Amino acid sequence: MRYPNGMKRQKYNTSATANQFKSQYSNRGMTLEEDINVTNKFYLDTNKAIIYKKPTPIQIVNVHYPKRSAAVITEGYFQAKSTTDFNGLYRGEYIDFEAKETKNKTRFPLANIHEHQLNHMKQIVQHGGICFMIIRFTVHNETYLLQADKLFQMIENRKETLKSLPYKTITQAGYEIPLRYPARVDYLPIIDQLYF
Amino acid sequence: MRYPNGMKRQKYNTSATANQFKSQYSNRGMTLEEDINVTNKFYLDTNKAIIYKKPTPIQIVNVHYPKRSAAVITEGYFQAKSTTDFNGLYRGEYIDFEAKETKNKTRFPLANIHEHQLNHMKQIVQHGGICFMIIRFTVHNETYLLQADKLFQMIENRKETLKSLPYKTITQAGYEIPLRYPARVDYLPIIDQLYF
Repeated sequence: MRYPNGMKRQKYNTSATANQFKSQYSNRGMTLEEDINVTNKFYLDTNKAIIYKKPTPIQIVNVHYPKRSAAVITEGYFQAKSTTDFNGLYRGEYIDFEAKETKNKTRFPLANIHEHQLNHMKQIVQHGGICFMIIRFTVHNETYLLQADKLFQMIENRKETLKSLPYKTITQAGYEIPLRYPARVDYLPIIDQLYF
Repeated sequence: MRYPNGMKRQKYNTSATANQFKSQYSNRGMTLEEDINVTNKFYLDTNKAIIYKKPTPIQIVNVHYPKRSAAVITEGYFQAKSTTDFNGLYRGEYIDFEAKETKNKTRFPLANIHEHQLNHMKQIVQHGGICFMIIRFTVHNETYLLQADKLFQMIENRKETLKSLPYKTITQAGYEIPLRYPARVDYLPIIDQLYF
């Protein structure tokens, strides 16, 4: 099996064992994030879109500067993101999205989305950007694109006590993204249909 | 003197002493990056634009997980950026820029811009994004917005042996950004003029 150029496995792959695989070219223990990174790399290499994952912000407390070699961060902490994971440019339009996967079979827990991320998504929609979520149900090995507007609606319409959205509602309101090769999570054709 | 909400000084402010200050509200030892962060925060708070600095990518080698407290990165390295520092959304358009300051009085050293950043900027222009550089000459305390296209031209037109661009050419091809309060580097009015 050949991989697209530059594909790297991440060191800390925590959800590998939860995935089930449908076809030869679907995920072999890749997280959703890795799949999207590979897809974006493919989009970039083929000059289709310029979309990157934002690095995780890290609060740097201590740095050591050894002689004749690179600076080493010796104390740092992961910080919460105030925005979504991915953004970029496609066909002249600003694209912004968050990607989440769940091992839950029947529901998508809302704890997966932080409030500041939701606020960010609302701002993006308000300012005319294309904004959505990519949600993967790892047990079903199904990945959906859900437009931000529909997500906001679903969150508002749910019973307030409910801390999750039903799998079924997401499959109905969202668009299933085909998992193929080499664009593993080939979401741009859905964007074409919905926004162009 | 009052600062806009949420303004923080960065811990490692290396260029503070090089700045000279023109007016009451201009930079008091703030780096260009800090000024732009404050400006973007103001744009965000006033719902004008959604523009963020991308976090510096850090390669994480070791993480320590103490009981009952946050994970600590105990070995990490700074990685080179493959893109520019800032991007976001303004009036429905994708915005992308890099910010650099120099202590040089008469020239802007091209070593300040990496080749992969230039390539990224070319891609952004090609795909219909708004792309530019913000360049500060700290000794003059002058800050210019230079459109990507003009930057590419200047780089191409220079003598190949020259590793810098003249201050004068930048002041002629660029647009001086007023340094004021509370938007310290108030670049959006120039974007309005040039692109809308």
